[in-house]
Amino acid sequence: MTEKERWIYGVNPVIEAIKSSRKINVIYISRQRHEKVQNIISIAESKGIIVKFAEKDFFDARFGKGNQGVAAIVEQKAFISIDELLEVPKSKSQKPFFLILDSIEDPRNFGAILRVADAAGIQGVVFQSHRSVKITEIVSKVSAGASEHVNLAEVVNIKHAIDKMKRADICIVGAEADVSLSFWDIDMSIPLAFVIGSEGKGLRRTVKEMCDFIVSIPIFGSVNSLNVSIAAGILIYEALRQRKG
Amino acid sequence: MTEKERWIYGVNPVIEAIKSSRKINVIYISRQRHEKVQNIISIAESKGIIVKFAEKDFFDARFGKGNQGVAAIVEQKAFISIDELLEVPKSKSQKPFFLILDSIEDPRNFGAILRVADAAGIQGVVFQSHRSVKITEIVSKVSAGASEHVNLAEVVNIKHAIDKMKRADICIVGAEADVSLSFWDIDMSIPLAFVIGSEGKGLRRTVKEMCDFIVSIPIFGSVNSLNVSIAAGILIYEALRQRKG
Repeated sequence: MTEKERWIYGVNPVIEAIKSSRKINVIYISRQRHEKVQNIISIAESKGIIVKFAEKDFFDARFGKGNQGVAAIVEQKAFISIDELLEVPKSKSQKPFFLILDSIEDPRNFGAILRVADAAGIQGVVFQSHRSVKITEIVSKVSAGASEHVNLAEVVNIKHAIDKMKRADICIVGAEADVSLSFWDIDMSIPLAFVIGSEGKGLRRTVKEMCDFIVSIPIFGSVNSLNVSIAAGILIYEALRQRKG
Repeated sequence: MTEKERWIYGVNPVIEAIKSSRKINVIYISRQRHEKVQNIISIAESKGIIVKFAEKDFFDARFGKGNQGVAAIVEQKAFISIDELLEVPKSKSQKPFFLILDSIEDPRNFGAILRVADAAGIQGVVFQSHRSVKITEIVSKVSAGASEHVNLAEVVNIKHAIDKMKRADICIVGAEADVSLSFWDIDMSIPLAFVIGSEGKGLRRTVKEMCDFIVSIPIFGSVNSLNVSIAAGILIYEALRQRKG
């Protein structure tokens, strides 16, 4: 594999990669194959993508459970710049709605966040190249292939991205545990970007200082926290509710 | 181990088990131990729980990643009956708010759902003994220990539970992909139980027929689905929003 090539695996990631504009160099199919795979072979052939067959062990050794006997070597996903990201809402005649990730460390959380960001029609997700998980094959798998479709901006420092968004009149809403302002009590129908912190540490102090609001999701239980991807889903869908109609 | 004993592992599950009323038979601590573990040793000793020390390999062989060098053998969690469940809202002077799971298969999803159910203060979660995942150590781990605190009713068939709830004037709201009624458009401030279907198949037809409403979470993206635990979180918190104040 070259430096720009990446593995992806699983039925949904490979199907979504084919549907997206990503360049696929080769698809591997298990000889003991999953029922949905015939579909992949047909589409791949119609698009002139090379298909190779391999034994079950080939997949299990590389990807563990859930590989479904399908994998592909793809070119690295193209990221977009913050300036390009800021053009997306205009091109769609939508109000800006972005997500900024401050150092998510677990690829499952990252994948789950990308899946809900895609579902919600978020126009782009900004993440930091340093101290974050990368867009690995697990991220793609957990996102059910949604990582193929979401506009992603990888940046050296999210603070520069936040700064550019603020200058474009986008309201920056950070999410934290244990602040008194509830996410239900702010207006999210305006141009908006959520900033979500890492699993263990939350938002960095310097990131918090740049936010227009810091909100919490109220907790009524014994264990005083939510999984970061579920928290992201709850926040995002409350914003969608406020923005509809 | 006896038939009624179960493993749990990880810092949060063991701490939450100690806080809850669950009987703990022994706690194992790694000699190469996690910084938070000293706390566990102190509490365990104050409660007269046996603490044993073991090598790192003992934990890694049994639990894989994320074990943090802490595990415990506990007595099986006590489940409550549907009749007992129906008494919980009265005892707390709250409106009924339950969650019913129709055959969740992935322990990570089960654990994530229990975590958000606890966070939201849901009064009980009903799940089926047959064709569902059990409350395994992975469920407990992913729930961050919340599975220790949530009232759980394991039933042979959720349809009997739904029937009892309906007779107690609880509105049964099923969640499905691709129905036209949005979850934003129904009144969830009344006595309520959500029914959440399995990851692949959704709700069974016979379960759907018992629901007062079937709602969807609107999707605006390319991949037409949400992770079941994120969907549960979004639904539950919209109900909480409607019920507050």
